[in-house]
Amino acid sequence: MTPVRLALVPGEPAGIGPELCVRLAHQPRQHSLTVFADRRTLQAASDVVGLPLRLLDADASATQPGELALVEIPNEVEPVFGNPEPRNAAAVIRALREAAQGCLDGRFDGVVTGPVHKAVINEGGIAYSGTTELLAEQAGRDVVMMLANDVVRVALVTTHLPLRAVADAITPDALARTLRIVHDALRDDFGIAEPTVAVLGLNPHAGEAGHLGREELDVVEPTLDRLRAQGLRLVGPLPADTAFLPARLRGFDAVVAMYHDQGLPVLKYSGFERAVNLTLGLPYPRVAVDHGTALELAGTGVADPSSLFAAADTCARIAHIRRNLPA
Amino acid sequence: MTPVRLALVPGEPAGIGPELCVRLAHQPRQHSLTVFADRRTLQAASDVVGLPLRLLDADASATQPGELALVEIPNEVEPVFGNPEPRNAAAVIRALREAAQGCLDGRFDGVVTGPVHKAVINEGGIAYSGTTELLAEQAGRDVVMMLANDVVRVALVTTHLPLRAVADAITPDALARTLRIVHDALRDDFGIAEPTVAVLGLNPHAGEAGHLGREELDVVEPTLDRLRAQGLRLVGPLPADTAFLPARLRGFDAVVAMYHDQGLPVLKYSGFERAVNLTLGLPYPRVAVDHGTALELAGTGVADPSSLFAAADTCARIAHIRRNLPA
Repeated sequence: MTPVRLALVPGEPAGIGPELCVRLAHQPRQHSLTVFADRRTLQAASDVVGLPLRLLDADASATQPGELALVEIPNEVEPVFGNPEPRNAAAVIRALREAAQGCLDGRFDGVVTGPVHKAVINEGGIAYSGTTELLAEQAGRDVVMMLANDVVRVALVTTHLPLRAVADAITPDALARTLRIVHDALRDDFGIAEPTVAVLGLNPHAGEAGHLGREELDVVEPTLDRLRAQGLRLVGPLPADTAFLPARLRGFDAVVAMYHDQGLPVLKYSGFERAVNLTLGLPYPRVAVDHGTALELAGTGVADPSSLFAAADTCARIAHIRRNLPA
Repeated sequence: MTPVRLALVPGEPAGIGPELCVRLAHQPRQHSLTVFADRRTLQAASDVVGLPLRLLDADASATQPGELALVEIPNEVEPVFGNPEPRNAAAVIRALREAAQGCLDGRFDGVVTGPVHKAVINEGGIAYSGTTELLAEQAGRDVVMMLANDVVRVALVTTHLPLRAVADAITPDALARTLRIVHDALRDDFGIAEPTVAVLGLNPHAGEAGHLGREELDVVEPTLDRLRAQGLRLVGPLPADTAFLPARLRGFDAVVAMYHDQGLPVLKYSGFERAVNLTLGLPYPRVAVDHGTALELAGTGVADPSSLFAAADTCARIAHIRRNLPA
């Protein structure tokens, strides 16, 4: 059997992404890694971390520690670590798009991405609200953002929305779409035959029978009932504070939170270093780091690669599971 | 020096409160405990847990394991564990009010309260939204709810409000009032000379410079600047997900969250059993358990008393610190 082939995108070239990719190249692995990046930037990152890097042809299988296959995406200007350059925004976006296209075309089994600097991309004249959104649009799919570590998987119904806009965004359609995607991903990507998903309420105490808000009665409960009738195992709506008690978490394969700050604090508290960001609903697995470009660390070689390692492990695991799915 | 005198209120007589009080009575302690309750209910709870209980006169000092001073507040009907009785609502509220009045009159140094069943009190014909609110009104003070365990202290600007009402409730006045009360309590009740308080943003990523909501720019930052000019050490507004990273938490004496589900999930995840609920801003310390009436456990004797033990420890510690304050 040919090894799983993962596409790797470092993200912002002036951030810690390139050096994390060099460290990842040195991890023992079964899968092949093809990086979409500028050769000189990678060599500079190799010097920073003090580890040699062997760059193979684009179509090579790179499974040995220290090597990466390279699809070269040249930067417009040579990056200076710590100082992002808007003129390189086009190269950052092109690397993401080409790697994703390779997955859509079946040349790769999944994509692993490093941190992108949102403001710099926009300063470079490219409308960009996030890699999740970019990949969803390219693939023409509805997607869900899930953050996961060794303790818990948290998926979000709404992501980067002002708090005052959240309540109106929790529609039956949005909620049902999210829950279907999460359910299917737990089954197909994580290999859980009958996943159990906890769904949080929108309001404190999940609305306390309507005393603290009516959305649970009017939107959440009817939607859960409809999906339960279709066979989904859904628990909730649950109060957010007690749903995350460790003893309760062990009974759930994932927690679906209604909004960003309801779901992510426990995830980051319980294991930030090994946390990864998954995009569910694409035709291929996409797993990203759960941290930013860390410009203050870029070029020092001390940045912690745990999240990128976890992202690559998770992506490879999902790719293996997907290969064994009935066609 | 006379020992610290704490008032103790079991809360709902048909819940686990009475049996937790019996277990608390058996804890070694320096302070005196006076319980405001029905004698027969306490004796029934004593039978349930299989520990003897010696009830002393109301004005006695009860510092020995196994004894409590008793201010009798008779129930209207004898409670059946597990089956709350609305006719006893008046006795539940009277016990809270008399214990609090004892603190206001200087006869007690603080009050420790068990779980109350909100719906049963209201069914009993008494308008009651929570003990925190009842004590605030009785004392004529603005108060803040703080939840605390061994890991973190979390105070809330808004508490039991539908999510869609939260953004409008975050006014400069409400925020400043909360932060002042938290600051003063950390200094006077916890003995932290110059407390550092982390303040979360309202929106995800603390608004990301206005891209994800303007409340940080329009309300939070100007309020923090004003209070900093008055000498308060305030960090923020911080994104809620990264503020709770363990390494960051160690730099904060408390975290002020804008709303319930932003602040409490990490608190409960990180140590539910030893968590307590404090009311800050009263003329006396009030510390409550951080759990409900657990009707399904009442009468079995197996309920975990950790939160009530922690509440009594915390209340006694604060009472000691307050005694040594300059007048």
